[in-house]
Amino acid sequence: MKKLSFIITFVFLSILFVQAQQAKYVFYFIGDGMGVNQVLGTEMYRSELKGEIGITPLLFTQFPFATVATTFSATNGVTDSAAAGTALATGNKTKNGTLGMKKDLETKINSVAAWAKDKGCRVGISTSVSVDHATPAAFYAHQAQRSSYYNVGLDLIKANYDFYAGSDFLDPTNKKGGDGSSESLYTLVDKAGYSVARGYKDYQKKAKKSDKMILLQPSSAIDVSAIPYAIDRKKGDMTLAEITRAGINFLSKDLSKGFFLMVEGGKIDWACHSNDAATAFNEVVDLDDAIKVAYEFYEQHPDETLIVVTADHETGGIVLGKGPYTLNLQALKSQKVSESDYTRIINNLRKKYKNQVSWEVIKQSLKDNFGFWDSIQLNEKQEARLKKVYDESFGGQKVDLQKSEYQQDEPLASEAKKILNDIALVGWTSGGHSGGYVPVFAIGAGAELFQGRIDNTEIPVKIAEAAGYPN
Amino acid sequence: MKKLSFIITFVFLSILFVQAQQAKYVFYFIGDGMGVNQVLGTEMYRSELKGEIGITPLLFTQFPFATVATTFSATNGVTDSAAAGTALATGNKTKNGTLGMKKDLETKINSVAAWAKDKGCRVGISTSVSVDHATPAAFYAHQAQRSSYYNVGLDLIKANYDFYAGSDFLDPTNKKGGDGSSESLYTLVDKAGYSVARGYKDYQKKAKKSDKMILLQPSSAIDVSAIPYAIDRKKGDMTLAEITRAGINFLSKDLSKGFFLMVEGGKIDWACHSNDAATAFNEVVDLDDAIKVAYEFYEQHPDETLIVVTADHETGGIVLGKGPYTLNLQALKSQKVSESDYTRIINNLRKKYKNQVSWEVIKQSLKDNFGFWDSIQLNEKQEARLKKVYDESFGGQKVDLQKSEYQQDEPLASEAKKILNDIALVGWTSGGHSGGYVPVFAIGAGAELFQGRIDNTEIPVKIAEAAGYPN
Repeated sequence: MKKLSFIITFVFLSILFVQAQQAKYVFYFIGDGMGVNQVLGTEMYRSELKGEIGITPLLFTQFPFATVATTFSATNGVTDSAAAGTALATGNKTKNGTLGMKKDLETKINSVAAWAKDKGCRVGISTSVSVDHATPAAFYAHQAQRSSYYNVGLDLIKANYDFYAGSDFLDPTNKKGGDGSSESLYTLVDKAGYSVARGYKDYQKKAKKSDKMILLQPSSAIDVSAIPYAIDRKKGDMTLAEITRAGINFLSKDLSKGFFLMVEGGKIDWACHSNDAATAFNEVVDLDDAIKVAYEFYEQHPDETLIVVTADHETGGIVLGKGPYTLNLQALKSQKVSESDYTRIINNLRKKYKNQVSWEVIKQSLKDNFGFWDSIQLNEKQEARLKKVYDESFGGQKVDLQKSEYQQDEPLASEAKKILNDIALVGWTSGGHSGGYVPVFAIGAGAELFQGRIDNTEIPVKIAEAAGYPN
Repeated sequence: MKKLSFIITFVFLSILFVQAQQAKYVFYFIGDGMGVNQVLGTEMYRSELKGEIGITPLLFTQFPFATVATTFSATNGVTDSAAAGTALATGNKTKNGTLGMKKDLETKINSVAAWAKDKGCRVGISTSVSVDHATPAAFYAHQAQRSSYYNVGLDLIKANYDFYAGSDFLDPTNKKGGDGSSESLYTLVDKAGYSVARGYKDYQKKAKKSDKMILLQPSSAIDVSAIPYAIDRKKGDMTLAEITRAGINFLSKDLSKGFFLMVEGGKIDWACHSNDAATAFNEVVDLDDAIKVAYEFYEQHPDETLIVVTADHETGGIVLGKGPYTLNLQALKSQKVSESDYTRIINNLRKKYKNQVSWEVIKQSLKDNFGFWDSIQLNEKQEARLKKVYDESFGGQKVDLQKSEYQQDEPLASEAKKILNDIALVGWTSGGHSGGYVPVFAIGAGAELFQGRIDNTEIPVKIAEAAGYPN
């Protein structure tokens, strides 16, 4: 009898399970440059900040399904963000640098966002960098060159999704691709029926009356190319969590349709291009904070919501450990700003002191921003490294800015970061991408599809399967 | 009607599934030092050998369940093999250097192998390195210091498992721990009722008549500390696949009891300690070949067999890519021997030419063994690097052997390997371990327990759950 009741319960649970498969609401989080070590490093960093060994889990690493995915592009063992974005968006490998087209550079391919739209779902594409950057663009654009930002902007309008969010457009009047006299993308999005909100508060004002929305950061923002790093965040700065909240709010206008929302944590990659560990780990935490907003929605609709978290590729070749069988990530606690923002701070000192900045002033600023000679003791060699860079870059000669993919930093900012990496025992292999696995985490309706080692091209196909998108 | 028959089928399948849970035969494969990039790198290397971009999958990466595990020890963010082995064997984190004891260095803790024995299963512990090395030892020994090899050997006897295999004992008469006059481990294992076989053929001769077996490599082997690297293998050398075949054969003497077999691919770690990419990738392939032997058994007993593949930690901080968005792993094709075996080759040249080895002779040997000036074109800088090392190490001065954890290599062997790494675009961060994730793959009865990101201590507990071991 007991066995029979077990069987009956099992049957009903099974039927429930089978019926609960379809994901009406899909969240697709992509951490740009977030390889496996970026995730693990962040969790170990969080423990070491508390003086503990081990991990303090992020929310998304606790999702019931976890695996890894390969990322090579059609042409390269190491992918760029355009080819990786295209794989994650369309399920097709393509040439590095290409968006939403096959490697023949002729055949356009639609993304999982377009499939969702075809099914009648509301669709949103959002990021912490510019709305026309490679990862978001892979979901709506078809361009042989990812750098054709104006044309990418035109494709954004053509895709006609319900919601876009990011820092801004990079080339609104086609200065880069042409002579800058093309009709402004701001005018064109307006003509196409989009409201443009500047910051979260502005979004809240405009959302109700808007049919389609482009959320950009406030006009006061210093850098159009991205919202500020989490580690540098100041009051009034737009955040990825706010972007996510706005996206959910806007796409929820008609829940009966279901929705698809892609959210990119775009600056993990930027911090890793400049090998800035503390900044990168804080960006991963920031992505997790955005995921928490989606998780709140999931908790309200657990049977119909799928959250997938992955990355496009690894950046920097970060390694947790440099030889000694230990880590010292707690040293990163003393870093208060990104390498990039410390460059701004040094620039301000240069202005304040008319470029005659004394070593004492610099030492104080290194103490304030990196904890040197305070919580972080430097050895003679490390102090000499800083002094040498100071002498060179404040000695009257032309300053050689340290270039990484998205930044040009003061040599002193770069040296301070390198020394702190050394002390924290964090290794980096390059300023570029690597071919390592990316992690994949999933929860909710259809999450069980993410089992076994996969390729990045399988991810949108599995999402479509979970959500019943035509593709 | 159709729906009803579906439900009935589903119920029966479900019952079958529930009943098929218990893993009577358990294989636990551990790739020492096999982090995620060691696995992925091997698969990309296999593709590039064929002139393709992408991966040529190993068998074990295609298992239906895959995830990653954290590896930190009780005391260190970066574990050593003893603490990692103890975690993988007993489910307890301990101090680096410690085997089968809690971090108080007093409380002994039993391993999943002991739990299997308690259940009445036959048990085997095997490795490609010495039988008393950290990883195998974690399954039977209780020693505060992993380097107490003689005492580890005594614990091996005390554990009284059915089958052990490896290269040899490292300290059979306690030269290291004492004065070398202790009763020989060979005598003691004989007294304890073990047959000792020397090589696979000898095993085949002795197996039937033996109650308990210790399989060591043939007496002719050059190095007692490990079987040769796969890349250096010569006819007559014992292989990990043979060890696995012998293990299955011996433990299958009474299949009604079920069995637990641990197989370690121990030299992935060694190759990575010396940052020798081609050698490491060939070791991973070699582990896969051993797994194939277990898979044959699985195919015969699919409902009752569990295969779990994982690693104890990552070694070397290997990164696939050094900046350019590409890999050139096909360059590794031209490497015919390990750095370690190339050291032996140079030594032979030194002997042959009474240490007066000409640059021409060296060039020829670099051509033969690394493909330099043949399939691999060197630039001026690379050639100058080799010539400089040649001048220094053949110029009459004392040769500074390049030390890594398990090897002391000729400077020229080390330099040749470094240049080939550079050309292949493989980065390394150190000669030690890193704190990165290890991969986990599983197939068979209970394999579905390996879902979601886990800690290494969870693995033996999940195996015990799958197999119904008391613990």
